[in-house]
Formats: sequence, structure tokens, C-alpha cells
Amino acid sequence: MKDVEEFRVILSAFQQQKEVKLKSSPADLVTETDQRVEKLLISAISSRFPQHRFIGEESVAAGERLQLTDSPTWIIDPIDGTVNFVHRFPFVAISIAFTVNKQTEFGIVYSCVDDKLFTAQRGRGAFLNGAPLHASGQEDVSRCVVVTEIGAERDDLALSTLTSNICRLLQLPVHGVRALGTAAVDMVQVAVGGADVYYHVGMHCWDIAAAAIIVQEAGGVVMDTDGSVFDMMSRRVLAASSATVARRIAEVIRAFPCRRDDEETAGSGV
Amino acid sequence: MKDVEEFRVILSAFQQQKEVKLKSSPADLVTETDQRVEKLLISAISSRFPQHRFIGEESVAAGERLQLTDSPTWIIDPIDGTVNFVHRFPFVAISIAFTVNKQTEFGIVYSCVDDKLFTAQRGRGAFLNGAPLHASGQEDVSRCVVVTEIGAERDDLALSTLTSNICRLLQLPVHGVRALGTAAVDMVQVAVGGADVYYHVGMHCWDIAAAAIIVQEAGGVVMDTDGSVFDMMSRRVLAASSATVARRIAEVIRAFPCRRDDEETAGSGV
Repeated sequence: MKDVEEFRVILSAFQQQKEVKLKSSPADLVTETDQRVEKLLISAISSRFPQHRFIGEESVAAGERLQLTDSPTWIIDPIDGTVNFVHRFPFVAISIAFTVNKQTEFGIVYSCVDDKLFTAQRGRGAFLNGAPLHASGQEDVSRCVVVTEIGAERDDLALSTLTSNICRLLQLPVHGVRALGTAAVDMVQVAVGGADVYYHVGMHCWDIAAAAIIVQEAGGVVMDTDGSVFDMMSRRVLAASSATVARRIAEVIRAFPCRRDDEETAGSGV
Repeated sequence: MKDVEEFRVILSAFQQQKEVKLKSSPADLVTETDQRVEKLLISAISSRFPQHRFIGEESVAAGERLQLTDSPTWIIDPIDGTVNFVHRFPFVAISIAFTVNKQTEFGIVYSCVDDKLFTAQRGRGAFLNGAPLHASGQEDVSRCVVVTEIGAERDDLALSTLTSNICRLLQLPVHGVRALGTAAVDMVQVAVGGADVYYHVGMHCWDIAAAAIIVQEAGGVVMDTDGSVFDMMSRRVLAASSATVARRIAEVIRAFPCRRDDEETAGSGV
């Protein structure tokens, strides 16, 4: 995969010092590479599918209205794990999901540094570099490895909610808690079976849209952190090896209030 | 490196279902592979250096007295990241340090799944697969990526101390907190420059003895979590990109009481 233009851009930039801009918080960074890769991807896809719509992290950050419609839509995170990218902490991914009638048809997560391509198409299974993936199927929460992120929300309520979630999970107990710094790569660990649970509050649809179908097609379950039906615009996601484990985790973790990804802001056009 | 006997044992075992035993807590696991690799290593080294002493995780777990003397001593963790290993979460390492007169002369961390060999010899620099390593040199704590672990200590005091440490760090703020599930691989991220801080309370000397000299030889600093001189038997370690960052982190994090690695237990012989 490393000969594809977008991937070469990321890998060569990974080795260099970056010009970094702050977005909403000290953990919410953007680089020229994020913007450049998103433009490359949208331009390449648009030239073949001129009617398709896009939801891209950087386009939304630049003020575009975020709205998932029934039209064919590509949901793109050009660099998931921008903090890692800036620091050269070795986990960054491109995440691309494709939806029709608001349903995800396929998802791609490309973990750039270790050259791992995770793919899934609805009803056709999940794959890592072409080899089939299977979630662990673990049913016993006390034997689970959990992956999560603190993320970019850093107000007191968010921090206390997120750290107390970790504390309650460890008291269940679980085997351990991990955090790689990219939602997409974290979440596909459940599809691989290396982790049994991934949950996150405060992420965005582009972080997890592709990984969600990859987990589901690997036999895992994906729901809201409160146990209700997964809604990729809700800023909450819980993925697990089994419904039993997912429901038990949903009983323990709490969310803090987040503005939905598709909520209109005062300044946004209609 | 993958053709070395000990490494082949770990890699082939990584793909298989494991027989797992609990040690002190649900996060403290041991497998046949841990024990087998430690025996292989000790046997191979002993045959060349019959006078040398050993401190090995599994030998100590089996009841051997842990005592660092002035004799040439090999400090061995056959599989650092046993929980990862059991779950096939893709980070496990062999950690080997060699001390004379209680001073570490060299350290080796071999990250098995991604075939990364980290090495350092006192006064001669640190290397990854032969290429020189340099810590980031970061002096501004608010721009740091921090790696840490909750570890195997799960009583209420340990959990509340560890999660409140994370909360205070994020309020400093820092750029992010990561956890890969192996102390040795976590800690060498500071030597690589991908992370700026690693700290841990409750780990053992075999988890971090090798990584400590790798960080120091890469230009990083290693101290106790309270800012005092590093003591590998104390169950506390703080590694950082610079002394400035290390001191700032030491002001913020707290430790919980841990029995020293070389403390005599009631049942141990002298």
C-alpha cells in the first residue's frame, strides 16, 4: 500500500518536523498534512464519482456543515491520531467509510507506519491485509483487555468522567486498559481479537465510522456507550467481543454531554 | 533477530491459545512461554558465564530471593507484557539488563512482534536496529506525550492514585496519555522521541532495568517519581525528554506504597 500517493505523503511527513495548529484544545492539533491528504482523497474520489458527498474532518473544521444524508457519502479522517503524528508516536491511520441511505457499505482503516490495511464490506467479512479477521468472542468481562482514549475534551467534567470510568472498569476487574492514541487503530484491535472492548466518548464520526463496520464484520458488536443502538453522530461508541461483554461495560461507563456531530451551530448555514 | 531460538519460541506461541496462570492479581498472568524463555536465556548465558548471577521475573515468582549484588548480574524479563501476550495484543518484549557493581552496563529490549531491537551500552549511545536513538529533548510539559500503565496493583489506593495522576497530568495539560501494555516498550518510546515522558509505579526491576539505560543513552533522564535518584528496586520510575519536564511531572504525580523488589518477605530465606 505504501506506493499510493496519499500514503506516501503521510509517511514522508511522519519523519519531518511539523507546522502545527491548535484547534479546540491542546490535544486537538491539525497539520498541513491532514489538510493535504484530505484534499487529495476528495479530489481523487470526486473525479470518479462527481455526485458523491463528503464528510471530512478538515472540511468540517474549516466550516462545512456536517450532515449525513441518504446520498452516497464518504466519511474521511485523513490522519487519525494527529497528536501521534506530530510526535512521531508510531500509530497513525487513514480512515474512510462509505455510506448509502445512512448505512455504512464499507470501511477502510490503513495503519500507515506498520502498513496494515483493515477492510470490511457489509455482509462480506473483515480483513487485515487480505486475511480474515475474527473478534475474540470473549463473554467474561473480567478477562477482557479494554482500549479507550481520553481524547481532546479536557474540561473538568470530561476528565473526571473519563478517569472514573477507567477506575470502575479496573475494579470489575478487567485484564488491562490500553490507549494507542488513534481511535481507528484502537477500535480495530477488537476486530483482530487482540482487545475485547473499545469505548470512546467525545470522538467524531470520522474517527470510528470505518472501524465500526470492520468490528461488526469481524463478529464483534457495536453500540452506544449507554447500551442503545449505535449512532455514529452521537460522539459515543462501544465495541466489544460479544453482546454480553458490551452490555456489562455499558452498565459501568458514563458519558459526559457532547454536542452531536450533526447538530447545527449558531453560526452555521442551513 | 527472528531466527534466534528464544524469539522464535515467543513468536510461535503468540499465535496460539495459552495456558494461563494467575499470579498476584487478575492482571498478573504467567504462561508456560514466560517460564520456558527465561530458562532458555539463563541456560544459554550460564553456559558461557558460569559465575554470573540472575534476577529473572519467573525465578523470583518461583520463590528465589531477589537481591542485587556487586557481582555481574543479568536482570531478565522473558516476556514483558504477558497480558498482551495472552490476548495477542501486539506488543510484547524481552528485556535484558546486565549490571556490575550494581551499575547497568548494557540493556536490550526486543519488541518481538514488530521485530524492533533496542540496545544501549553505558557511554556508547542507544540504538534501534542499529540506528542511533535520540530523546525528543522537549522542555515544555504542555507539549508532551506521556506513556504510563495502570499495572497489576489493583487495590483501591493504587487505582485511585494512578487514575488521579492521569487526571492531574491532563490538566497541566499534556498532549496525551498512551499505554501499550508493556513497560519496556512504553519506556523506550522516550528513547525514540515518540513520547516525552514515561512513568510507572508498581512495576518491577526486570520491567525497566534495560529500558532505563536505553533512555539515558538516548539523552533522556531517568529518576524516581518523587524526583530523587533512580533506584531500580524502588518500584517507581520516571523517564523524560529533559530534566525540566521530569521535575515538572514529579511535582504532579503521586506514588502509593509498594514493597521494594529487594525487601525480604517473612517467608524468604536469607
